[in-house]
Amino acid sequence: MMIKFRKLPASACKTLWKMGREDPRRVIHGLKVAAALTIVSFLYLLEPLFEGFGKNAMLAFMTVVVVLEFTAGATLCKGFNRGLGTLCASSLAFFIEFVAEKTGQKCRAAFVGASVFVIGFMATYLRFVPYIKKNCDYGVLIFLLTFILITLSSYRVENVLNIVRERLYTIGIGCSICLLMSLLILPNWSGEDLHSSTVCKLEQLARSIEACVSDYFKDKDIGVKEEEAETSRNLLYRGYREVLDSKSSDETLAHFASWEPRFSRNCHKYPWHLYVKLGGVLRRFGYVAVALHGCLESEIQTPRSIRYIFQDPCTQVATEVTKALTELATSLKNRRRFCPDMLSDHLHKALQDLDTAIKSQPRLFLGSKSANNMLVNWKNDKETSPRVTLPSVKSDISAILSELRHKKIAKRSKDSEERKQLRPTPSKLAIKSLEFSEALPFASFASLLVEMVARLDLVIEQVEELGNAANFKEFQGKDDVVIDMSGKENGREIQNQTTVGE
Amino acid sequence: MMIKFRKLPASACKTLWKMGREDPRRVIHGLKVAAALTIVSFLYLLEPLFEGFGKNAMLAFMTVVVVLEFTAGATLCKGFNRGLGTLCASSLAFFIEFVAEKTGQKCRAAFVGASVFVIGFMATYLRFVPYIKKNCDYGVLIFLLTFILITLSSYRVENVLNIVRERLYTIGIGCSICLLMSLLILPNWSGEDLHSSTVCKLEQLARSIEACVSDYFKDKDIGVKEEEAETSRNLLYRGYREVLDSKSSDETLAHFASWEPRFSRNCHKYPWHLYVKLGGVLRRFGYVAVALHGCLESEIQTPRSIRYIFQDPCTQVATEVTKALTELATSLKNRRRFCPDMLSDHLHKALQDLDTAIKSQPRLFLGSKSANNMLVNWKNDKETSPRVTLPSVKSDISAILSELRHKKIAKRSKDSEERKQLRPTPSKLAIKSLEFSEALPFASFASLLVEMVARLDLVIEQVEELGNAANFKEFQGKDDVVIDMSGKENGREIQNQTTVGE
Repeated sequence: MMIKFRKLPASACKTLWKMGREDPRRVIHGLKVAAALTIVSFLYLLEPLFEGFGKNAMLAFMTVVVVLEFTAGATLCKGFNRGLGTLCASSLAFFIEFVAEKTGQKCRAAFVGASVFVIGFMATYLRFVPYIKKNCDYGVLIFLLTFILITLSSYRVENVLNIVRERLYTIGIGCSICLLMSLLILPNWSGEDLHSSTVCKLEQLARSIEACVSDYFKDKDIGVKEEEAETSRNLLYRGYREVLDSKSSDETLAHFASWEPRFSRNCHKYPWHLYVKLGGVLRRFGYVAVALHGCLESEIQTPRSIRYIFQDPCTQVATEVTKALTELATSLKNRRRFCPDMLSDHLHKALQDLDTAIKSQPRLFLGSKSANNMLVNWKNDKETSPRVTLPSVKSDISAILSELRHKKIAKRSKDSEERKQLRPTPSKLAIKSLEFSEALPFASFASLLVEMVARLDLVIEQVEELGNAANFKEFQGKDDVVIDMSGKENGREIQNQTTVGE
Repeated sequence: MMIKFRKLPASACKTLWKMGREDPRRVIHGLKVAAALTIVSFLYLLEPLFEGFGKNAMLAFMTVVVVLEFTAGATLCKGFNRGLGTLCASSLAFFIEFVAEKTGQKCRAAFVGASVFVIGFMATYLRFVPYIKKNCDYGVLIFLLTFILITLSSYRVENVLNIVRERLYTIGIGCSICLLMSLLILPNWSGEDLHSSTVCKLEQLARSIEACVSDYFKDKDIGVKEEEAETSRNLLYRGYREVLDSKSSDETLAHFASWEPRFSRNCHKYPWHLYVKLGGVLRRFGYVAVALHGCLESEIQTPRSIRYIFQDPCTQVATEVTKALTELATSLKNRRRFCPDMLSDHLHKALQDLDTAIKSQPRLFLGSKSANNMLVNWKNDKETSPRVTLPSVKSDISAILSELRHKKIAKRSKDSEERKQLRPTPSKLAIKSLEFSEALPFASFASLLVEMVARLDLVIEQVEELGNAANFKEFQGKDDVVIDMSGKENGREIQNQTTVGE
């Protein structure tokens, strides 16, 4: 027990040190707040300044402590709320003072009490309105406080105007120090946090999907200990969870980002709301990814022998999806437009291969082992009428993909040619008889992979919309910037995001 | 434009009125805050009371406005934070005052300034620690503010003890009025919100799954307009989303609930954390539900003819899952234990039927139409060796389910008998040749249904754990309470939940 207590300070120090190393901006923020407070305390400590503001300096402290937030957007938003709340409350208080002046002292007490009750009720109730709750909850709080203070002060003190003026001055001083610290000295932008967290989410999804598919086809008996596999799975799952649970922090960041001076000169208003929308699309993509991940943990597992047959095409599709996501992340990171043409061809090819592989195993889903030794005579039907369409996985997906392109018709005709070439020849097929129920989970796995490709399209669409709205630069050949896929940086970014989110 | 402006007040009033009707507790909360503020204002307005507290009454106002939250738990938590923060800050300020006393006036200013800087930095930095952020963010804020106020006051004022005493008195008065209002007069409990939102989530999942499966098999050509279908789908999706996005609000509610006096007398500490855990399990269940829902919106659709074959067994499984979820919701609502035996038999049966149905269509997943006219000769192999195991969907699921029961062995032997009886006879099977790719999405749908049953087990387990930990009453036959499945009440509960969450 004693040893534990003795170790406590050491471990606490270690945690604090690690926190600072993970994100030095936290230390900087701490120093900024401390500096702002010290500057305000000069108002109180230095004789000549004290004469002027002294007694009201406390309000300036309060303003600094409450308003100076981690990011510039949050500080601006809170400062504005505080200023506006105080102004509105002052005006209303003056109006009530004007009305109350005409009544006697006794009546006046009742009048002041009643106005406190009514305004208190109204302000509290208004805070439940979703729009107000989201945008100016703090402003209404400050409004209520200031109104009560001024109205009650006016009951005892003669010159309320002085009180109000001093209040506004000190709050003004506090707010300007906050803005100075927040906007000019090493500012943290909510917008950049949102941008980098979105990039990070794309990268994490890419990594998770790759790991998930390779895990699905990995031979568990060889190498890798159970514990290691467990931790890698947990890591995988955490990757999804960051994406799936990002809703509220995304919205908060976007809200604060909309308060920040836009760093893009070309466009009218930076489209932060599209980041939130992209986050939503990524979440829907993530649901499929989680369902895919669920195939790993499912109680009913397809035997390794069956999986092995489809390993290559599945891995291929997963690789292409991963590549697309990574490419999206890179283009977003460099604020340049995304060029879907480069990828869709490979994706096409991979889907085609998967389709072919699945078609080449028609008996995979045949009945139970009781039908083990049955014979199948294939009769090749040479008369394939030309009007027979082949609504395969690939054709559907390719239809979606090709809609995005301009050369629709040319492409399609090429596709159908390819399809003809790739038609399986049933007589040569390997025939295996397997439990239907065992193959069912694999069918789900494959179907989810295909579904994922369909959802990927929505992601690509959303990133393109974002690129257009934010006036990203056009894509010009390959860019040299390499994405840093190391865990450390991304971990940091994610943590910042949650820090700010609250 | 003018008309729009003229209509604005009317529509605003309508919104406010609707908000109040949806949840009258909001109006009550508003009235409570107003009443508390009016009571505090008596301290200032009435002559005899003003003599005692008057000048410091403002702090009491501030305490009421900031501390009096919507639920009792939140008020308690904030009040405690405020009190503790003030106490700690006062002690530290006295200590620093004691040290500073021994230095000269000039030195003292520097000393005070330095201590403001150091404490300001430390407090701000500490607020980034996740544990502190979650539990006492507000306390650290108040600590910092109080510390600065007292330390600086001690520089100018002789008797700091008086200031501190008055501060503590007024904060004490403010807090006690808050607690009185919050705990004794029509209290809103975070715990009850959490409880009812969990019940509501279960009900919503049940409704969504039922609607999703019936939608999947519905004939779109007949009846129902496109718009109606669209809105019903949106409603469906919103049901999931409430579950999937509930993480942060669940955690907040559970945190505040842990502050509330427990209403259960029997158990030591009410297990609110298990509600959060159940929420997590429900979210993982929800991911499968969303993936299932994705089958409705998928780009590749299985033709109606194929779906029709499996309509009955699939609907059966969905109905059983829905029944189980509804039963879970009812038992949780009535705070009684859940009895899984009642349901698992039906669930077994439904899974078995689905398995049989899928096995009865072995050719569903055969190649493309180019192999349209091929002939298959089934040769029934009568020699089924007894050691051949049948790892079917059903057997796996039943294994999980039966583990939950006590009569493990007896059940299992019965199961395997059933399985033998249900083995399909391939010769009688209807043979249809269909595109593999078209059947693939259905395989995914069926597999997700089965996966859902597997996940349902985790939900049941979690509800049982919760029931044990919270000492729910034992199940005694059927209870009479009927769940109100109407949308209105649930909508209200969900909204409360988000209201409190922020």
